Amino acid sequence: MDQKFWYECNSIKNLQNDANLMKNTKIADLIEQNSNSGQFDAQFNDIYFDFCRQKINTSVLNHLFEFADERNVVKKIRDMFEGEIVNITEKRAALHTLLRYPYTQNNIKNYTQNDIKNYTQNQQNIYKKQQNNIQNVHSVLNQIQLFSQQIRQGEFCGYFGDKFEYIICVGIGGSFLATQFVFEALLANQNAYKLSNNFNLMFLSNVDPINFTQITQKVNPKKTLVIIISKTFTTAETMLNAQLMKEWLIEQLGNSDVIEKHMIAVSTNSDLVQNFGINLKNMFGFWDWVGGRFSVTSAVGILPLSIVFGFDFINQFLNGCYDMDMHFLNTSINKNIPILMALISFWNSSFFNLNAVAILPYCQALHKFCGHIQQLIMESNGKCTSTFGGILDKKTSEIYFGEPGTNGQHSFYQLIHQGQVIQTEFIGFIVPPLQISAKNSEITAHDELMCNFFAQPDALAFGKTAETCLAEGIADWLVPHCMFTGNRPSSILLLPELSPYYLGCLLSLYEHRTVTQAFIWGINPFDQYGVQLGKVAAGEVRKYLENTKGNSVTKKNVKPFCSSTQKLLNTYLKY
Amino acid sequence: MDQKFWYECNSIKNLQNDANLMKNTKIADLIEQNSNSGQFDAQFNDIYFDFCRQKINTSVLNHLFEFADERNVVKKIRDMFEGEIVNITEKRAALHTLLRYPYTQNNIKNYTQNDIKNYTQNQQNIYKKQQNNIQNVHSVLNQIQLFSQQIRQGEFCGYFGDKFEYIICVGIGGSFLATQFVFEALLANQNAYKLSNNFNLMFLSNVDPINFTQITQKVNPKKTLVIIISKTFTTAETMLNAQLMKEWLIEQLGNSDVIEKHMIAVSTNSDLVQNFGINLKNMFGFWDWVGGRFSVTSAVGILPLSIVFGFDFINQFLNGCYDMDMHFLNTSINKNIPILMALISFWNSSFFNLNAVAILPYCQALHKFCGHIQQLIMESNGKCTSTFGGILDKKTSEIYFGEPGTNGQHSFYQLIHQGQVIQTEFIGFIVPPLQISAKNSEITAHDELMCNFFAQPDALAFGKTAETCLAEGIADWLVPHCMFTGNRPSSILLLPELSPYYLGCLLSLYEHRTVTQAFIWGINPFDQYGVQLGKVAAGEVRKYLENTKGNSVTKKNVKPFCSSTQKLLNTYLKY
Repeated sequence: MDQKFWYECNSIKNLQNDANLMKNTKIADLIEQNSNSGQFDAQFNDIYFDFCRQKINTSVLNHLFEFADERNVVKKIRDMFEGEIVNITEKRAALHTLLRYPYTQNNIKNYTQNDIKNYTQNQQNIYKKQQNNIQNVHSVLNQIQLFSQQIRQGEFCGYFGDKFEYIICVGIGGSFLATQFVFEALLANQNAYKLSNNFNLMFLSNVDPINFTQITQKVNPKKTLVIIISKTFTTAETMLNAQLMKEWLIEQLGNSDVIEKHMIAVSTNSDLVQNFGINLKNMFGFWDWVGGRFSVTSAVGILPLSIVFGFDFINQFLNGCYDMDMHFLNTSINKNIPILMALISFWNSSFFNLNAVAILPYCQALHKFCGHIQQLIMESNGKCTSTFGGILDKKTSEIYFGEPGTNGQHSFYQLIHQGQVIQTEFIGFIVPPLQISAKNSEITAHDELMCNFFAQPDALAFGKTAETCLAEGIADWLVPHCMFTGNRPSSILLLPELSPYYLGCLLSLYEHRTVTQAFIWGINPFDQYGVQLGKVAAGEVRKYLENTKGNSVTKKNVKPFCSSTQKLLNTYLKY
Repeated sequence: MDQKFWYECNSIKNLQNDANLMKNTKIADLIEQNSNSGQFDAQFNDIYFDFCRQKINTSVLNHLFEFADERNVVKKIRDMFEGEIVNITEKRAALHTLLRYPYTQNNIKNYTQNDIKNYTQNQQNIYKKQQNNIQNVHSVLNQIQLFSQQIRQGEFCGYFGDKFEYIICVGIGGSFLATQFVFEALLANQNAYKLSNNFNLMFLSNVDPINFTQITQKVNPKKTLVIIISKTFTTAETMLNAQLMKEWLIEQLGNSDVIEKHMIAVSTNSDLVQNFGINLKNMFGFWDWVGGRFSVTSAVGILPLSIVFGFDFINQFLNGCYDMDMHFLNTSINKNIPILMALISFWNSSFFNLNAVAILPYCQALHKFCGHIQQLIMESNGKCTSTFGGILDKKTSEIYFGEPGTNGQHSFYQLIHQGQVIQTEFIGFIVPPLQISAKNSEITAHDELMCNFFAQPDALAFGKTAETCLAEGIADWLVPHCMFTGNRPSSILLLPELSPYYLGCLLSLYEHRTVTQAFIWGINPFDQYGVQLGKVAAGEVRKYLENTKGNSVTKKNVKPFCSSTQKLLNTYLKY
């Protein structure tokens, strides 16, 4: 564990010095040198990462590596993989990486035993300690494999014998966002699209009854399977929606026996699952060492995704995660993509006060990616307390936002080009799921998309001077509106294709980049105490509304609200 | 037009002085006083706005009003309504408010002539000048009313006589985001849901062919009506998608005559519309004084929405916009909701360096609201050049991001509570579209949602001290992780219901808040030169790809790329 704040480290002096020197450096003047040095890109399995367009030169880079050493980043990563109690506040390990340890049962040959041996030769000790956990993981994967097959073949079916077509995931936050991202992304893959042909996957997350109404209006209850996803099986929103779904199913199907057939669960709490009325045979477990926002590779995500796309297909997603895990664990810092990304964001936000990162996937299928990233990073690293208990007096996590390109170009890119300076991360795919071209066009529609992908980072870096504007004949008075300062940092991530394997790589990459940033700042990325206060406060309002609207004679004790809240509540209750 | 930067104004001294004094003020200590003073809320038509939880006291408020006076905000607003050339760089008016001037034809009695007279008694001069434009607006509304009725009744139908079921809007940015927001929001309204019963509205915006493929995989071409929406009819993404749709329709339906029946347009450019093959009878016009991101109340949004929900229903949306327009135009600053919101954001970002605003609608149906707001505000105000041509040396627009509550609570709220300080705007509705309750619950599901809505602003303002944590029995070492500094600003907007009328109010409110911020900062919210450079740069890449992949013997002249981009292009082309 760290014993001091990151900004008290010795190596910080060099970085601060660099930052002062770089203040007036133009990114445009660094690109050639950076690109030619070979130090500003990294590759893994045909994934190409380029960060030539950062306000970083070789000196900065080396000092960042020294700093990472001083922060014991490599040791902390190893601790995480080895199952040390890295989640120190909740006294838990964070072993989501175990969830993708290759599962080779039933001749799914994505990995041979030899592959695994090669992969793990450097970390046999790591996985040796975890044999029990790995067995548990694989046992649940086996359960998912069999169950998803039964659903897909109609062997496990509705109470009246109907094959399931509507799969409703009831869960919120980490039980929802990553699964939704992966599902939406995969739908654009043509193989996945065919595999999913008979299923509609829906997400009931919000406690807002609109979410419930809109879903139940669309489905046939006889063909509906509901998966309740909650680690503790106590999450307020999820349990209310689970209750509403249960009552709805019973009402629609006319029989309370339907629950055992139409509702299943992903949880760590078998007592509450059973009490709810779900058959424990249809409960899929995970473990306290899997945090919600790192849980998509547990049954939380793998169960619904396997039902919709088939287990074999989704196993490739797990393989992608595993391979990126190995890259993260085994690659030296200077070519380690997640660590590089973490160091870059750290540099920009901690030394240049760039408090926001735009995530810009040039892929419409990644339209839910940013929603997952917001939770992953902002919930993990939006904290002010160091692991040793000291309150940081510098900011930690940046704000993350974004939309797929080119849609974003017609929206907030104006600000990115001529407003405040934002860190940007461009994500693109080389091969599209389908090649489509307009007649008489020399390039494909995907090429059109990628023209923008390749153009934007340079536009941000180089900008456009007043001189260029004048040379183009723009009127004097208009020039200040048409010029671009440039000098805006970006990174580029180019992946081969939108396959389950590479989506796994992408997911794992951002997971690891997130924890690395936390390790650098010296905060715990695995807890979320910041969401507690709001929950408790909502409980107070609930008691007040129950007192006012309910039938109980004994009223609950409620602390008085401030005048403003009381006025708002009066307005609310007037209707 | 302003002649100096906002920070050179005399009244800024008072505000800067206030900001220094307020630095250590706790929001928690202001709330009671603010709430009791009656100065920190405003109401309009049962919309309730509360800003007691800002770092603003009476002195700040009065100085903000003085500053607004010095910035001539009221005059600038009036200029906009009167059709002055407020878009000074493009030399255009910005008359989107005319689009909702009440349309009373055919006995749609939402407004009597008397209503209108009352409304306009203070601004007769404003609308008197605009009689021609108003006639044009109403003439297009009349065209929309008739045409949408023909579609809904199956009188205007597909080439083979099929009633249209799939309405595909091809458009990007301002031709898409607001319409999508309003459409998704209305779908949760039960009347709207019934009215939309026979129609699927889809949006083809992204040049990524995934967008095209996923839509065409879902629709029956015989029952598909395509609306091409582009002000200039030259937007690259839109024209490529229009071309792809055209080729697809001809291929699917086996006849090039189908285009006149299956494709219509919203545009200002009749020549290009006609050249494309669309019958001008099926073109719906608008005008150069309607900016893209302010265009949803033109045919851009009203045509598709009227097809799906019926014109009479959507006319209520226009009425909501108009009434908020009147509130904005006629209400004194101290009770003018859009102006107050603008001044609050200005204060937070310009004096406390709070560079981000989280938009937090406690309504799942508003899940596309933030996408519209990002464009509306970040494209309007993400600029660095003042209207008189000087480059501002202070930041302008904040970053906007957000998700519906309670989903966001399980995602990025951690950062909002314990990470960097963010401006937050809570939006809630009193009456839900449907009342749903779990059995044995004393409150409804909507109440559960609203408990969180009422609780979060206080949690953000008051926080939780170490003492409280200790008193609750939290272990010493854990207290720093469980305490909350509080002192985080928020505003609250409470609307009566999710109706087309109140959605109109909400839309117009944010439009006006946006332009008011621009008026204060002295920038032009109506142009978007910041998106040009990327477009041009993409054209260079396109030429390169055409040279490399195309069949032309004569190669186009392309400027060399930087090494980094060339490497990326080589990687891309290797596949």
